[in-house]
Amino acid sequence: MKIIITDTYEEMSKVTAQHLLGYMYQDRRVNLSITAGTTPIKMYELLVPEVKAKSYFDNVHYYNFDEIPNRKEGREGVTISDLRKFFFTPAGISETHIHKLDHNNWQQQDEQIAADGGLDVILLGIGADGHYCGNLPGTTTFADQTSRVECDAAMKERIGRLFESSDEIPDYYVTMGPRSVMAAKHIILFASGTKKAEIIKRLVDGSVDQAIQASILKMHPHITLILDKDAASLL
Amino acid sequence: MKIIITDTYEEMSKVTAQHLLGYMYQDRRVNLSITAGTTPIKMYELLVPEVKAKSYFDNVHYYNFDEIPNRKEGREGVTISDLRKFFFTPAGISETHIHKLDHNNWQQQDEQIAADGGLDVILLGIGADGHYCGNLPGTTTFADQTSRVECDAAMKERIGRLFESSDEIPDYYVTMGPRSVMAAKHIILFASGTKKAEIIKRLVDGSVDQAIQASILKMHPHITLILDKDAASLL
Amino acid sequence: MKIIITDTYEEMSKVTAQHLLGYMYQDRRVNLSITAGTTPIKMYELLVPEVKAKSYFDNVHYYNFDEIPNRKEGREGVTISDLRKFFFTPAGISETHIHKLDHNNWQQQDEQIAADGGLDVILLGIGADGHYCGNLPGTTTFADQTSRVECDAAMKERIGRLFESSDEIPDYYVTMGPRSVMAAKHIILFASGTKKAEIIKRLVDGSVDQAIQASILKMHPHITLILDKDAASLL
Amino acid sequence: MKIIITDTYEEMSKVTAQHLLGYMYQDRRVNLSITAGTTPIKMYELLVPEVKAKSYFDNVHYYNFDEIPNRKEGREGVTISDLRKFFFTPAGISETHIHKLDHNNWQQQDEQIAADGGLDVILLGIGADGHYCGNLPGTTTFADQTSRVECDAAMKERIGRLFESSDEIPDYYVTMGPRSVMAAKHIILFASGTKKAEIIKRLVDGSVDQAIQASILKMHPHITLILDKDAASLL
Repeated sequence: MKIIITDTYEEMSKVTAQHLLGYMYQDRRVNLSITAGTTPIKMYELLVPEVKAKSYFDNVHYYNFDEIPNRKEGREGVTISDLRKFFFTPAGISETHIHKLDHNNWQQQDEQIAADGGLDVILLGIGADGHYCGNLPGTTTFADQTSRVECDAAMKERIGRLFESSDEIPDYYVTMGPRSVMAAKHIILFASGTKKAEIIKRLVDGSVDQAIQASILKMHPHITLILDKDAASLL
Repeated sequence: MKIIITDTYEEMSKVTAQHLLGYMYQDRRVNLSITAGTTPIKMYELLVPEVKAKSYFDNVHYYNFDEIPNRKEGREGVTISDLRKFFFTPAGISETHIHKLDHNNWQQQDEQIAADGGLDVILLGIGADGHYCGNLPGTTTFADQTSRVECDAAMKERIGRLFESSDEIPDYYVTMGPRSVMAAKHIILFASGTKKAEIIKRLVDGSVDQAIQASILKMHPHITLILDKDAASLL
Repeated sequence: MKIIITDTYEEMSKVTAQHLLGYMYQDRRVNLSITAGTTPIKMYELLVPEVKAKSYFDNVHYYNFDEIPNRKEGREGVTISDLRKFFFTPAGISETHIHKLDHNNWQQQDEQIAADGGLDVILLGIGADGHYCGNLPGTTTFADQTSRVECDAAMKERIGRLFESSDEIPDYYVTMGPRSVMAAKHIILFASGTKKAEIIKRLVDGSVDQAIQASILKMHPHITLILDKDAASLL
Repeated sequence: MKIIITDTYEEMSKVTAQHLLGYMYQDRRVNLSITAGTTPIKMYELLVPEVKAKSYFDNVHYYNFDEIPNRKEGREGVTISDLRKFFFTPAGISETHIHKLDHNNWQQQDEQIAADGGLDVILLGIGADGHYCGNLPGTTTFADQTSRVECDAAMKERIGRLFESSDEIPDYYVTMGPRSVMAAKHIILFASGTKKAEIIKRLVDGSVDQAIQASILKMHPHITLILDKDAASLL
């Protein structure tokens, strides 16, 4: 495990962007799975001008690793909408290079990625509760591949804020499971802020335990943590 | 996870030897960690004539991944003695290419292997109880790197048969922990016989659970199982 | 450049087969380009029983690197016919895994191989005149990719013995050019017999010179020579 | 060959720096050979703040690929002095990570680099005459490894401008030869300005010919050209 500690959120974002660019410049097909959410916002801001209209990145393919579907017909899910807003649309990524995971194709996701040559790198954020992708406490187990997770009332309340109206909130979401994530060649996990300090310490120093979903990630032979100094403050 | 099912113990041994040779022929330093025990006996029999006196394998370095020390002064441990008997001595491996793990250096093992470039491949057997290396049920935990394990009375009885007299039996042994093993670039696990069928099924289909030490191995992005058809009979 | 010197043609054949198997066992698509001719006959004899009916080699794809077409309608060329006879047919390789280079598709060969992920390894023989594939003296130049080579009278006489009747002899043949071969991730060149000793010495110790086609191969960052002691006798 | 065409010298410099950073972030020892001269000045300007005082780059080792010694006792050569001025000193690179090629150790350079694990990447500039490193027209030949090149009067005049006084000008210089450069795992060649347009066109479209030293580089299986639009204007 390589641990990179940066001074600020901005530096963390820049270093993470540089990691991705290092892969993207290769001269063969590169498969990236990238994260939505708030942590990457600055990173995408930095990445967009580097990537926009650059034909030398035509070898790069993008995968989303989870999706909360929208029940309204014809609406895309929360994750892909986020990725479009912050990256795919401003960066002008061709639709043929965007490989959506959704409620229709999740059962083919692991096989499809393997057939495409596997993920070169998967970029993960982490929740204060140790979740990553849609692997929340009490949902998937370590051995799970891409899965459908039923939403109970608590979960519906949690994800409700992501939708405009209650009739859009789905009964389930889909996510790459721990085993699907561990199949990537390289895992990058980034985190910012004191709210993440406790879980980062738990991940680095603690046991591997199903109660803390992210604890499995330290077992990957090639994982990099990119932290700002607040997130790293308890190490 | 690639699963190779062979017809016989002999074919399993040959296929495993061919996997190792595939690494050994490379034109740079290659670091192998290989197993003692009964499963590899035929494999070493096949490997010895391929390796003996071949200068084109001078790039290969060998590491043992566990050791049961012998309390009598000047005696080497059980694992290295086994590896010498079945492979290092008949194959004429130079002492400078044999990197012993023992009770003196186990605290440096993980760091030393990393400094040497990491393990290209680690070859593991598996016990019917799910143990591999010295990671027996109730000893190490998933997050452990190379560790010293104290021997209680039951363990001393278990390992007693490996020694000529009771005053040789040690109070502890050392082993690469689950996390050290998972750090290898490639894991090969081989198994033969119906006695292993149950644990192989458990490993392939079951959960990742500390009670079954080997269950963590399925989370490695690059693991190959080589089984004879008896060991694979419940898949 | 790694140089492996074996005692006999048989050992050279075995070591070369083991190199190929080392690649073939991988858990992802593997692209091999393999040679016809007399040098590999023993190697294919060894390889056939290892490969036949083994579903764990379903990840392996085969490419031929040159072809002398047969002018008679419906007849396959010399190289693919040879490969079928000595390897594809007895080993039961599925037609979907055999990627023929021929007079129809040679202009797409380099692009197709790149789209398929590139060649993991290309296995070459060498002529006493330094030719490999169809890169004979005075035909292609170093910078050439897959090419069509016109046959003059001398060439037609040379290749005539490969055909049953003179109306089958073509006016041209196709071959991966030096640059196409150099694009492979690993080059293995094998040679046997005193007739090859001079050209092997030339290759290893001599200059890089268009007059000796194989002289470029020593510039590849990852090339292995597998020689019997006769072919290596002048080193 | 991947060709990246950028709008300006600044963008070329940034993209090249990002390529290097992509390697440097890895979690194992990384060996870079980097160039002096005028082309990289902006790149080093961009790289210095990224690298300075960052302990997460402690895995990176630097090699210079040529050297023009200074005859005055105790003075370092031209190349290393340049690299110190533009990168090593402002970036605070530890002396233990700077592997100098000089007139004393050039005969061990190829072996030393191989023992260190090989070069992950070598960054080259190119002269309008096709030279790279110290491989000028009429000096080394393609098959040469690291070499000593004697300076005739014309060469002494050419390099004279690099020295303060004529008694510093050496009788010879040392350089990694074409074969040493081709042994790197990845070659990056960057070029800027219309003065380079002709040679870039020659390199991309032309033959492999000893008269044009850089022409060999297109035969490497993994080479990237990073050009500004002026240098690419004839493609």
